[in-house]
Amino acid sequence: MKLASLKNGSRDGQLVVVTSDLSRYQPVSEIAPTLQAALDDWQAKAPLLAQAAKELENNANTGEPFKEETAHSPLPRAYQWADGSAYVNHVELVRKARKAEMPPSFWTDPLMYQGGSDSFLAPHDPIIMAEEAYGIDMEGEIAVIVDDVPMGADLDRAASAIRLIMIANDVSLRGLIPAELGKGFGFFHAKPSSAFSPVAVTPDELGSNWQDNKLSLPLMVDYNGAPFGKANAGIDMTFNFAELIRHAAKTRPLCAGTIIGSGTVSNKLGDGPGKSISEGGAGYACIAEIRMIETIETGAAITPFMKFGDTVRIEMLDASGNSIFGAIQQTVEKYAPKETD
Amino acid sequence: MKLASLKNGSRDGQLVVVTSDLSRYQPVSEIAPTLQAALDDWQAKAPLLAQAAKELENNANTGEPFKEETAHSPLPRAYQWADGSAYVNHVELVRKARKAEMPPSFWTDPLMYQGGSDSFLAPHDPIIMAEEAYGIDMEGEIAVIVDDVPMGADLDRAASAIRLIMIANDVSLRGLIPAELGKGFGFFHAKPSSAFSPVAVTPDELGSNWQDNKLSLPLMVDYNGAPFGKANAGIDMTFNFAELIRHAAKTRPLCAGTIIGSGTVSNKLGDGPGKSISEGGAGYACIAEIRMIETIETGAAITPFMKFGDTVRIEMLDASGNSIFGAIQQTVEKYAPKETD
Repeated sequence: MKLASLKNGSRDGQLVVVTSDLSRYQPVSEIAPTLQAALDDWQAKAPLLAQAAKELENNANTGEPFKEETAHSPLPRAYQWADGSAYVNHVELVRKARKAEMPPSFWTDPLMYQGGSDSFLAPHDPIIMAEEAYGIDMEGEIAVIVDDVPMGADLDRAASAIRLIMIANDVSLRGLIPAELGKGFGFFHAKPSSAFSPVAVTPDELGSNWQDNKLSLPLMVDYNGAPFGKANAGIDMTFNFAELIRHAAKTRPLCAGTIIGSGTVSNKLGDGPGKSISEGGAGYACIAEIRMIETIETGAAITPFMKFGDTVRIEMLDASGNSIFGAIQQTVEKYAPKETD
Repeated sequence: MKLASLKNGSRDGQLVVVTSDLSRYQPVSEIAPTLQAALDDWQAKAPLLAQAAKELENNANTGEPFKEETAHSPLPRAYQWADGSAYVNHVELVRKARKAEMPPSFWTDPLMYQGGSDSFLAPHDPIIMAEEAYGIDMEGEIAVIVDDVPMGADLDRAASAIRLIMIANDVSLRGLIPAELGKGFGFFHAKPSSAFSPVAVTPDELGSNWQDNKLSLPLMVDYNGAPFGKANAGIDMTFNFAELIRHAAKTRPLCAGTIIGSGTVSNKLGDGPGKSISEGGAGYACIAEIRMIETIETGAAITPFMKFGDTVRIEMLDASGNSIFGAIQQTVEKYAPKETD
């Protein structure tokens, strides 16, 4: 089934089921008012939601037309957003660009940061930022929403907790990262509000493309209307979602509704660094990666980070070319304080 | 007023108002079922809660006896827990113990880390951990719960968003910190679930002890039944809560219910490092600090971190010796996986 949270003036939106082709939706308030409420009692709620989704699917004249731009992120706010760096290729490139060795442990011990989860952007909301100088960048990712996970969960237990899958734009402020990481406490200012796809889907919606706790389809990233990335999220993913969840739950339990991210999707393509789509490669899911490759190849980054007015679109298509999650479609805008603030 | 969330089998507990002397409580479901629900609509709910608290206070025969051990943390789970390091003295000691210079910017630019907020411990729950070798430590702190804060809020706006004040035990795993910070992405495993005091109080409950967005009272930390720390939270606090909130909101808004922590309370006492209570000093709100002082003075840390069975009690008393927030009272226990996990 596919679920969305429509904007209705409330903090958590209105939970709806959406048809597989994203054409229609049906509110399911009588089952659960919000997605978090459904996740809080998933064993009881999921069968009821699945039934409602099936009825909507089978009755073409029911429901309302689904419009992606009316959707919040499926969880407009969440109790946890923990983002891995599972495409170690991406991490290795970062290091290579600054001529640093990557510790070999990075291939066996996942990198993960604790993100802010209280104020996600809606998938079609602008990315509002005070300064272009912050180095505004997108990061195209896959993310899962999990059920309760006990502390110390093993891989099987971790895998069995995966309830829903989304795509994500983990907005990053590259200009703020070096100073912030230099302070030693990890990201804070450099990771502002992230956005997630208009719909979250259960693993069965992905068929054989969801295997081994990975999603093996290209993540399409368009930048200012042109193809920028199409890296396959199932390739070069060093840590699958079960491994990322186990990592997150090592010293504490995870509450239902926790979102675990993959980190920027990145394909290595053989032994060298990735290539742009125009050069026949899989392109990039963030600007930082092309800048790293430019730095390695020419000694300096060429592609600038996002400016006010720039747009990014992140989407994943099934074998028939249909959008699975709907698109994240965002424009960077300059922040202007509101009178009411 | 004073608010608590009693354990009732639900994820968020039962919101109650508590008398100023912590002797009685009254459920307020008709106003808001949970503290987060009250925070989501504070302007409307706060006057009703204050009225209920006043009625409970004035009618000695109403309500039920309040028992701290029946309370969750006021927010059993929250959308954000961002913890500062406002007592820069503490940070300077950490650096000094490992013979590193502290960057001068640390006096002007707050350190803050994004903590996990999905699974807080109740104030009388055990600290359950798999290994003593993790280096289990307490961190006695002050924390505030804020209302919505817009991105880029100035100091006045930040200060005006403070709704409730608590004390906290930011449990830390010292043995995991060096490797984790070495990876560059900040704390994750090293910061397991934190605990907060049984009640959260509005600033007016603190009278003149709440001034300049600081709480000027000693934070009493008892370790295994003996006084360990009594540092005054209003002294040596380089960044007050308005400054910490402004810092947190620099590149994104904060959602109502966000918890902002002070970091480990620490008093310098003149120019030298702090002294133990038995030596006439203010003692320590975490074991790491006495270990740092031991390292500076003798070349090696002497006091071990917490072992299974060790207890910590964190409390703050008013001028008459009454507990303001109730006590955090926790025992370290060895983790044993449950069959049902």
